[in-house]
Amino acid sequence: MTLQPILINGTWQQATGPDGDFKAHNPATTEPLDHDYPVSSWGDLEAMLTAAQEAVVALRDTSPEMLADFLYAYADLIDVHKAELVQTAHLETALPAETRLTGELGRTTNQLRQAGDATRARTWVTATIDTSANIRAMYGPINGPVVVFGPNNFPLAFNGVSGGDFAAAIAAGNPVIAKGHPSHPRTTQLLAELALEAINKTDAPKALVQMFYHTSNENGLKLVSHPITGATGFTGSRGGGMALKAAADEAGKPIYLEMSSVNPIVILPGVLDERRDDVAQELYASCTLGAGQFCTNPGLVLMIDSDDAQQFVQSVKDRMEANEPAPMLNESGVKTLQQGVDNWAEHGATRITGGHAMDAEGFKFAHTLYTVPGETFLANSEALQKEAFGATSLIVLAKDAAELKSLIEALEGNLTGCFYSAESGADDALYDDLVPILRTRVGRLLNDKMPTGVAVSPAMQHGGPYPATGHPGFTSVGIPAAIHRFAAWYSYDNVRPHRLPPELKDKNPTGTMWRFIDLAWTQSDVG
Amino acid sequence: MTLQPILINGTWQQATGPDGDFKAHNPATTEPLDHDYPVSSWGDLEAMLTAAQEAVVALRDTSPEMLADFLYAYADLIDVHKAELVQTAHLETALPAETRLTGELGRTTNQLRQAGDATRARTWVTATIDTSANIRAMYGPINGPVVVFGPNNFPLAFNGVSGGDFAAAIAAGNPVIAKGHPSHPRTTQLLAELALEAINKTDAPKALVQMFYHTSNENGLKLVSHPITGATGFTGSRGGGMALKAAADEAGKPIYLEMSSVNPIVILPGVLDERRDDVAQELYASCTLGAGQFCTNPGLVLMIDSDDAQQFVQSVKDRMEANEPAPMLNESGVKTLQQGVDNWAEHGATRITGGHAMDAEGFKFAHTLYTVPGETFLANSEALQKEAFGATSLIVLAKDAAELKSLIEALEGNLTGCFYSAESGADDALYDDLVPILRTRVGRLLNDKMPTGVAVSPAMQHGGPYPATGHPGFTSVGIPAAIHRFAAWYSYDNVRPHRLPPELKDKNPTGTMWRFIDLAWTQSDVG
Repeated sequence: MTLQPILINGTWQQATGPDGDFKAHNPATTEPLDHDYPVSSWGDLEAMLTAAQEAVVALRDTSPEMLADFLYAYADLIDVHKAELVQTAHLETALPAETRLTGELGRTTNQLRQAGDATRARTWVTATIDTSANIRAMYGPINGPVVVFGPNNFPLAFNGVSGGDFAAAIAAGNPVIAKGHPSHPRTTQLLAELALEAINKTDAPKALVQMFYHTSNENGLKLVSHPITGATGFTGSRGGGMALKAAADEAGKPIYLEMSSVNPIVILPGVLDERRDDVAQELYASCTLGAGQFCTNPGLVLMIDSDDAQQFVQSVKDRMEANEPAPMLNESGVKTLQQGVDNWAEHGATRITGGHAMDAEGFKFAHTLYTVPGETFLANSEALQKEAFGATSLIVLAKDAAELKSLIEALEGNLTGCFYSAESGADDALYDDLVPILRTRVGRLLNDKMPTGVAVSPAMQHGGPYPATGHPGFTSVGIPAAIHRFAAWYSYDNVRPHRLPPELKDKNPTGTMWRFIDLAWTQSDVG
Repeated sequence: MTLQPILINGTWQQATGPDGDFKAHNPATTEPLDHDYPVSSWGDLEAMLTAAQEAVVALRDTSPEMLADFLYAYADLIDVHKAELVQTAHLETALPAETRLTGELGRTTNQLRQAGDATRARTWVTATIDTSANIRAMYGPINGPVVVFGPNNFPLAFNGVSGGDFAAAIAAGNPVIAKGHPSHPRTTQLLAELALEAINKTDAPKALVQMFYHTSNENGLKLVSHPITGATGFTGSRGGGMALKAAADEAGKPIYLEMSSVNPIVILPGVLDERRDDVAQELYASCTLGAGQFCTNPGLVLMIDSDDAQQFVQSVKDRMEANEPAPMLNESGVKTLQQGVDNWAEHGATRITGGHAMDAEGFKFAHTLYTVPGETFLANSEALQKEAFGATSLIVLAKDAAELKSLIEALEGNLTGCFYSAESGADDALYDDLVPILRTRVGRLLNDKMPTGVAVSPAMQHGGPYPATGHPGFTSVGIPAAIHRFAAWYSYDNVRPHRLPPELKDKNPTGTMWRFIDLAWTQSDVG
């Protein structure tokens, strides 16, 4: 049996003494797909670290323009190979090809090009010049490869070898060691082939991008805490993220995690009166998008119980039952979801619909809705905030406004939080009372809109308070902000003018780069 | 015996069931000073956390102007009480009153006012507006009190209740729980009295500033990892910092540490030829400043061995022997320094002068210089990079340029690193070869200048790679950059215009605040 090769230092190579092998499965049929892939042993990862260390040195002499060229060339190649990528990702994930994956591919190339634009514009380095003290500072690479662990739910836009963490790490001038997700290895391999082609086209360092498909948990911990490693970006489960965080923290290595989030939606009474069924439709659509496998899936709804609220529950239920569930990404997703839903039931929630895997072809789980009284939620708030990752939602029915407030106070850190309120202003007093509490518990606050769309915007916060992520000051989506995660802050004190980096010399290196000179932002030269 | 009170929620109170008591000592005489201070039990800290949580809520309705007024009022009060503060700090630290402490007081008030200016200007919040997506984001408070542990070596400018971490935490809109250093409790108490007076003058929340003098290590760990705590700033030893870091990391609480640093000085051959004695004088002066108790003290010098280098060593030795050492801050400083110097000797370094405590009045340690061959350093590089905190320096003599390069490659993360090179350009080729290696190992790179001056500049990096600090992307000195440590990034997606914070509304709230609108920095309104 020949295993698919991994990408080390610009060359596709057989894994050395792999710790096993695996196949991906078509989630729509549960059948195994072609190709066998290696589970990398430590030797593979060590070879990548050694090559990456050389790339770190080579990148010191690489201009921002070359990195931007690489990011653009890579995006262009992804566009050229769009059909094959979308088809492959569809086979491995069962996500709809025409709508979802085509859109996701556009998001991916857009993100890479935005990172390229940021690299070229150089504003992200926050060049800061104090002319009177003659001290100057800027962000630069973090001095080690960035390890990126991609999740299973976005095979293109969050892939370790093409997604947001990847783009941000490269834009900051770091090489990337990408771990593909074992659910979509062929998609990852195709992307890595294009990344290598872009490296060769633009003469970027060979080890700018390296890739393996899978490794043991133990090797993962070793990788994020290795002396050569600069930092890590991780998107995935809370369990996996917490284990990696502990290892990286102990070694003093920055790690950015996007873990679980239930993304509370607070629906105030007035909006139910105005447009109950519209909101029910929005919740249904957002909750079931991509079989519910979005980090920002609305998994928890908070509202005050009433006839309107009961009819809202019925309206969501009807929509869930009227539509067939889409296949989930893999078998383990179905199992984990079952555990999540069973956990709700064990802690006093009532099944409204679904709650079980489907006896059908593919990895399918019934659209699922549960409700729970506010009092019960408060008594079990930790258990009932555990993510059930899928097309499922738990509606908490508070007995009154005071209890609704208590529910929000009991929330953990989340990526997003949303208020639906009446256009008429009928909910405004309640909104004003509740919003400060929700605001501090979420990274992104929404009004009148479900959270599943995560725009690649400079003003995005795809992050939030622990345990949604490891640090509330950083975002994993949004350029330039996301780039700073993989950068260090370097100061130059009395360094002779000709020795300064171009970004800190008196003359503006591009003529348009924004710099923070004597506490004012400007595109001018110094003096 | 009456113990001095601690500051909880706007009231000076007796510690509840203290875990012991202590006195400060005059380092110049080793005699105990007046007053007895409590070692706080957990009850005190818990009361502070509870009060701080209320202050967090109150601060949501506090304008940036009020916080700026508080910072200015506090600075003004420190100026008014300058004589008493300097005299008290002098008694507790033996640092020279007229030169050092008067200067440090000016730095302290300057820093508080700079923080006030930043709060008023609001540019630090990095208001980011994406008009096409209608997503807006800004930094805001981290949603919990900031615990600040002040070090012993700067009783005013880094004091937990008045220093850089304090100013940054308040500027970000957080209450502070300050732990004073037990070496200068009376100075800390006086400062806290002025902070409370400033709170009362400006109607700031009562628990904006709370203070205790001392607690057990166990309570320290509990405090930084407590659910109510927002973040921690720590300046001190590596041992203490690492223990706090482990506790905070495990609880998912941000912690910023400034730990040990040996601050390598690389002296290239050409500059010895040009001005050997000048550089020797600069090293001597920087090394012995404040009895060597600066975080940026030049504790490690790297040079190529030669007749010039030997004469340089002699020149530093002569200066060290010609001057009496100043008292150190406390007895434990002398003991720790002795261990540090003994550690050098155990790992092959040769004593040139000093190396022992002085048999004199006060906590004094002889000016100390050791040398070690490059080869020996490389064989013991971890041990010989351990900080010996005091007026001591270890000069490593490389046999040639290649070995000098290896020495730099062996360096751990440091706050600063410096090159002295010839004006003639004779060292430029060597500089160019070495600088990329040193650059990535230090936060602040200097030319032709010792690192002990840490300007409060927006371009300062008083930070650096682990283990000098816990994260290379943050600085503890320099406004506005230092403020971001105690902030979270909050995004507003489709939030109705009248509900946005003033900083994110279309209209610029001050008319002069810099905002990042559609990827350009501007002081204009949106649209």
